[in-house]
Amino acid sequence: MKKSIIITFALAASLAAGAQQALFDVNNLTSPEVHADGTVTFRLFAPKAVTVEVEGDFLPPQVVDTPRGKYESAGKAALKEGEKGVWSYTTPTALQPEMYSYKFKVDGMDWLDPSNVYRCRDIASFANIFIVSAQQGDKGWLYDVNDVPHGNVSKVWYPSPTLQTSRRMTVYTPPGYDKGGRFPVLYLLHGAGGDEDAWTTLGRAAQIIDNLISEGKVKPMIVVMPNGNANCDAAPGEWHKGMYKPSFMGHQASKPVASTEESFKDIVSYVDKNYRTKANKKCRAICGLSMGGGHSFGISKLYPDLFDYVGLFSAAVSLNVRGFDGLNDRGQKVAPEVEKQLATMFAKKPALYWIAIGSTDFLYDNNKTYREYLTSKGYPFTYVETEGGHIWRNWRIYLTQFSQLLFK
Amino acid sequence: MKKSIIITFALAASLAAGAQQALFDVNNLTSPEVHADGTVTFRLFAPKAVTVEVEGDFLPPQVVDTPRGKYESAGKAALKEGEKGVWSYTTPTALQPEMYSYKFKVDGMDWLDPSNVYRCRDIASFANIFIVSAQQGDKGWLYDVNDVPHGNVSKVWYPSPTLQTSRRMTVYTPPGYDKGGRFPVLYLLHGAGGDEDAWTTLGRAAQIIDNLISEGKVKPMIVVMPNGNANCDAAPGEWHKGMYKPSFMGHQASKPVASTEESFKDIVSYVDKNYRTKANKKCRAICGLSMGGGHSFGISKLYPDLFDYVGLFSAAVSLNVRGFDGLNDRGQKVAPEVEKQLATMFAKKPALYWIAIGSTDFLYDNNKTYREYLTSKGYPFTYVETEGGHIWRNWRIYLTQFSQLLFK
Repeated sequence: MKKSIIITFALAASLAAGAQQALFDVNNLTSPEVHADGTVTFRLFAPKAVTVEVEGDFLPPQVVDTPRGKYESAGKAALKEGEKGVWSYTTPTALQPEMYSYKFKVDGMDWLDPSNVYRCRDIASFANIFIVSAQQGDKGWLYDVNDVPHGNVSKVWYPSPTLQTSRRMTVYTPPGYDKGGRFPVLYLLHGAGGDEDAWTTLGRAAQIIDNLISEGKVKPMIVVMPNGNANCDAAPGEWHKGMYKPSFMGHQASKPVASTEESFKDIVSYVDKNYRTKANKKCRAICGLSMGGGHSFGISKLYPDLFDYVGLFSAAVSLNVRGFDGLNDRGQKVAPEVEKQLATMFAKKPALYWIAIGSTDFLYDNNKTYREYLTSKGYPFTYVETEGGHIWRNWRIYLTQFSQLLFK
Repeated sequence: MKKSIIITFALAASLAAGAQQALFDVNNLTSPEVHADGTVTFRLFAPKAVTVEVEGDFLPPQVVDTPRGKYESAGKAALKEGEKGVWSYTTPTALQPEMYSYKFKVDGMDWLDPSNVYRCRDIASFANIFIVSAQQGDKGWLYDVNDVPHGNVSKVWYPSPTLQTSRRMTVYTPPGYDKGGRFPVLYLLHGAGGDEDAWTTLGRAAQIIDNLISEGKVKPMIVVMPNGNANCDAAPGEWHKGMYKPSFMGHQASKPVASTEESFKDIVSYVDKNYRTKANKKCRAICGLSMGGGHSFGISKLYPDLFDYVGLFSAAVSLNVRGFDGLNDRGQKVAPEVEKQLATMFAKKPALYWIAIGSTDFLYDNNKTYREYLTSKGYPFTYVETEGGHIWRNWRIYLTQFSQLLFK
């Protein structure tokens, strides 16, 4: 009977597949296919298409000129139609180890690769992903799931008395956490349009930390990834506002009663109470990208006794506050309360104040102004400049670098 | 400065959106739109398309006749082209409260709705989802995230000495778990082609249990959702075999050293050690769908002292074992060891042995044979028959019903 059940199963599966996928993936294509020599082939079954392109960050970016200025867009390449309606494109050269994202354009319209179930959401749109790795330690290896011990990733609801609600965050506990002991904590913040899921999807945070711990390059640590939009309790679809379309600024119809910075102490206090943390400043770090970099800037100065390590990744930093319109004694528009908070924080000598940005980031000048201010005050910081712009590729690099400097 | 940063941000967002989405969703469409009267409108911007259809389980199924037999396929409806390349379709009548899945077909080819970021993977293909709810307690409400206390959902790596590897499972802990106390445990198993993610995506298990707990209809419980493929450590892309294409039978190139049934004690023992469980038979339940129903059948009889509640959802049950070719004294092909295990288990009088299946399920006859065997032996069981076939819509109903019967 067992055999007959298996046959029935196989038949049902094949029929179901026939119903769902025959027109779509009739050739059971492999796409993308990373070849031994590092080149990559993309394939799509699209017998009625006139043009098929692949658009992705593995191709040289295009500079697009608009009335509002120039910007970089992902590069494109044309697929060629072969037999039986299957289009394909192979990269002319090997791709460097990296996590890449792409989508197809069929007759000009975006289309995810149906042969590749691996895809990430960025605000309201999806892209397929793939990883190229040549050897242990390269970026592809760091972002991949390897045969190393894995930490656990949890979606945790915690009370926020300050925001008068319950909120959702992602918590990574390192391999071995279930065996006991106490651990330092990295608070890892997302950017505008992101949420508590972003660092574990686009950011590959669990893989990066797993892999670096396995190599002895990062101390086993808890990583807390909260939701940085005070007007959202959770990621889209994960709280009671329903399955709304994600936007850049969180949930605009919700009015928070306090800011992300003000409410952050609720998170630290929940984590210290519910996890086996080393609950002291030397064992706490905070970093974030873009808006989350701005939050890291703001939270670290608002709570100068909480964090010994601060990382600003392509950060949106403001030295001013709403309503202040004066100039300080150097002719800078710096609000007195910001000056005071920064003075207090730097007087307490944080172990690391780390700033990283890409050379073509649209926040480059904003960061330059902030670095100049820090230098003018004699506040020590570490500065890392990379190629490229305001992109996840850089933020994964920054997490890789910053995490190795912590809790030493 | 803050204001100028926000403007810069908005500009960057708009440019990025322009780069990524202009051709795709230029009209910033809402799709699907659930209207106040319960009808639903689908919209797609597809100016070059010749035909656009929506295929989904909210439409009457089509019966497809193939050389291998008839089967049901999701129903289809045609969208009409309106202004500016926007196609649309509105259901003629209100949809009943339910979670629905659908995709578009553009010139015959599958296409996910780009305006709807909510989508679930089923083996190797994706479908968009949406939920219709009219009032508290209906199916839509049960599957939705409501303003009720939420449990936490964790991806947990545990050692399996029997399978000689580390494996990943999903663990739901109920609201209030962080306040202390001990809880009963439901082991909730997926079907062939699924993995430890399936019940929390297609199955809406966290929402169902959250909502039923909030209504006082389900006891606060831990829900453990392991990976039922002994040849996989984890879901596709979540273990070191890389980003392979998911298939119906797990990872065929991996050879497990033991079966799912044999290794299940590793899971129970890890859960009892690492969670605050009520570690006794009266406080343990096991259930599963399809292959996972077969596993629940097998595990409950292999470990007759572990589970007081057993649920078989559209289960693949086999009374025979590989290699046995005889008949029992009733002329049935039932392996003596299976008879013996079932006799032992039923002699210990489980609190509930619950069997549910849809009237058009391809395993209906298989289940009927098993029920007849149970009746012939005088083994008590509860039987629930629903409409429909081997589909998630039924398995969500079965979880809703079964969970309310537990630990009373």
